[in-house]
Amino acid sequence: MGYIDIISEKTGFFVSRKPFTLESGSELPEVTVAYRTWGALNRERNNVVLVCHALTGSADADVWWEGLFGEGKAFDDTKDFIICSNVLGSCYGTTGPLSPNPLTGRPYGPGFPYVTIRDMVKLQRLLLDELGIEQVKLVVGASLGGMQVLEWGCMFPDRVRALMPMGVSGRHSAWCIAQSEAQRQAIVADRDWNGGWYEPGSPPGKGLAAARMMAMCSYRSFENFQDRFGREKKNEDLFQAESYLRYQGEKLVGRFDANTYMTLTRAMDSHDLSRGRGDYMQVLSSVTVPVEILSITSDILYPKEEQEELARYMPDASIRYLHEPYGHDAFLILVDKVSGMVKEFLQAIEAKDSTAA
Amino acid sequence: MGYIDIISEKTGFFVSRKPFTLESGSELPEVTVAYRTWGALNRERNNVVLVCHALTGSADADVWWEGLFGEGKAFDDTKDFIICSNVLGSCYGTTGPLSPNPLTGRPYGPGFPYVTIRDMVKLQRLLLDELGIEQVKLVVGASLGGMQVLEWGCMFPDRVRALMPMGVSGRHSAWCIAQSEAQRQAIVADRDWNGGWYEPGSPPGKGLAAARMMAMCSYRSFENFQDRFGREKKNEDLFQAESYLRYQGEKLVGRFDANTYMTLTRAMDSHDLSRGRGDYMQVLSSVTVPVEILSITSDILYPKEEQEELARYMPDASIRYLHEPYGHDAFLILVDKVSGMVKEFLQAIEAKDSTAA
Repeated sequence: MGYIDIISEKTGFFVSRKPFTLESGSELPEVTVAYRTWGALNRERNNVVLVCHALTGSADADVWWEGLFGEGKAFDDTKDFIICSNVLGSCYGTTGPLSPNPLTGRPYGPGFPYVTIRDMVKLQRLLLDELGIEQVKLVVGASLGGMQVLEWGCMFPDRVRALMPMGVSGRHSAWCIAQSEAQRQAIVADRDWNGGWYEPGSPPGKGLAAARMMAMCSYRSFENFQDRFGREKKNEDLFQAESYLRYQGEKLVGRFDANTYMTLTRAMDSHDLSRGRGDYMQVLSSVTVPVEILSITSDILYPKEEQEELARYMPDASIRYLHEPYGHDAFLILVDKVSGMVKEFLQAIEAKDSTAA
Repeated sequence: MGYIDIISEKTGFFVSRKPFTLESGSELPEVTVAYRTWGALNRERNNVVLVCHALTGSADADVWWEGLFGEGKAFDDTKDFIICSNVLGSCYGTTGPLSPNPLTGRPYGPGFPYVTIRDMVKLQRLLLDELGIEQVKLVVGASLGGMQVLEWGCMFPDRVRALMPMGVSGRHSAWCIAQSEAQRQAIVADRDWNGGWYEPGSPPGKGLAAARMMAMCSYRSFENFQDRFGREKKNEDLFQAESYLRYQGEKLVGRFDANTYMTLTRAMDSHDLSRGRGDYMQVLSSVTVPVEILSITSDILYPKEEQEELARYMPDASIRYLHEPYGHDAFLILVDKVSGMVKEFLQAIEAKDSTAA
């Protein structure tokens, strides 16, 4: 069931045997959620921090966001109870295309239903219910993670004390949809794709690698590539920039599933806070939870104007910026800054709460 | 020999039966150049305008740059003698991977040698020799075309009166190389790629389409996609942005060859005015021909800083800008503006010449 062999042995699994109804109306006969926790729930049950991961992430937030963990940092397990769950549709333990369909005994594969960000958040909420958590102090995440953060504010505002979305928009742009689709078509082109019914031993690796290579370009910036690689060569036939990308492509193939890539990028494309809720600006205005938005000014996927729009219309929102030229991935690179910002926002929430109390 | 069925019947072919030595040291036993001309050479032989095409262009400049042709426009055949030749390595009549290798009788395919921008320009010069043209009034082109324009200034400064490169840099950046390589890997992933030895009837179309889809994203801009497509849907399962990209991908497959795509993108990656010539800034300083650089400020492939660097170091260079948010493709979209700028520059050159005379 997924790439369980490479996820932490500390991973917990919550299995709900009840049918899980998706936004589309489809049903999953049962669902499993893989999750990790750090620290302990306090007596007041008010020290929960929920971390949402990005496209190829897992519940192991202490691996992909290591720099944010530790005493005195954003995610301090001596103080807070930190939770991260693998999203619905992923391949790291939560139900997704690699999971066996209970009705057939075979993996869902390309037959895995269309899921949305709202389905992911609905499942996260089930997990919180299971863990007996009524309210989360902060939901935080970037990119696909940030989409979940924002949906928390729309779907279950009573269950969250504050939100911190990063490098994200309130609705996926045509530009992002286009990039996703180009990547998906590289997977579809692969000789081993077979309509998604590939054998586990022969996945569409070259197509998935090409998709990742494209994605890596969009996660970084002109300046970042130029500073790192320039026109340096790895050998006579290969530029360092090419070699780096190929390595990134191959690395993902070793740890990620192509049907999962299709499922999750489509879920990202579905992202639109206003879907079925009315006018976009009015929907933003209805999010009354305190929000701090982190904007990455060199991000070519989610330009700062999108975050500024969120900040302008959400009534209790502020915005902070990362100006360094790393592109979208800045949230994974500038970990000290990001950690400091998350910590400061947590302190501000706590200060407000103690004043109110 | 290439996609000759879709190029103009007015196309001329210059065949050189002598071996053509490439920068790499490899030799082509013979070369053909497909070219078009408009207007007539005047008595002074000083009214030649050489147009250089971009990646998937052809000698038919009046097709892909139609808006620049006509009386009173940039390319006025009542006044000037306009020439455009298909580049070395392309599939529109000039020798390239689809051409038969005279030594084997079979198409070169993936065995076509590595070519550079300098090889393209060297072949263009052969054509000018053949046509009896000693000096060109203006060499103009964008993107891959702009690379050739710049190389003209380095390789044969005595043969050109002025240069107008657009949407280009003096050396291909790591960022551009990375994008190219991601695209090439989508082609390599295709089930029909077969190391480049695909059958003419079953080209690696899905891979080439995915490559084109990626490229199309990089040729436009966030704003351009957003304005045109937003989150509109073509049907229940497909966003307009996806549908548009798929159409663009399929369209290219119908008119372009995958090995050619590999050959020409590698040639673009080779682009570096300073290769073997010393320090980059010094090489720029040595280009004494008058240059007018057109910078597209929304271009994510060739950011304006690169053109400003050219303008700063080339001793007789000026720079103009296209500020509209179309991205790299602005040179194909804002044809009236581009035509006006080319015309003004031509007039400035002519005025200088008549003062000097």
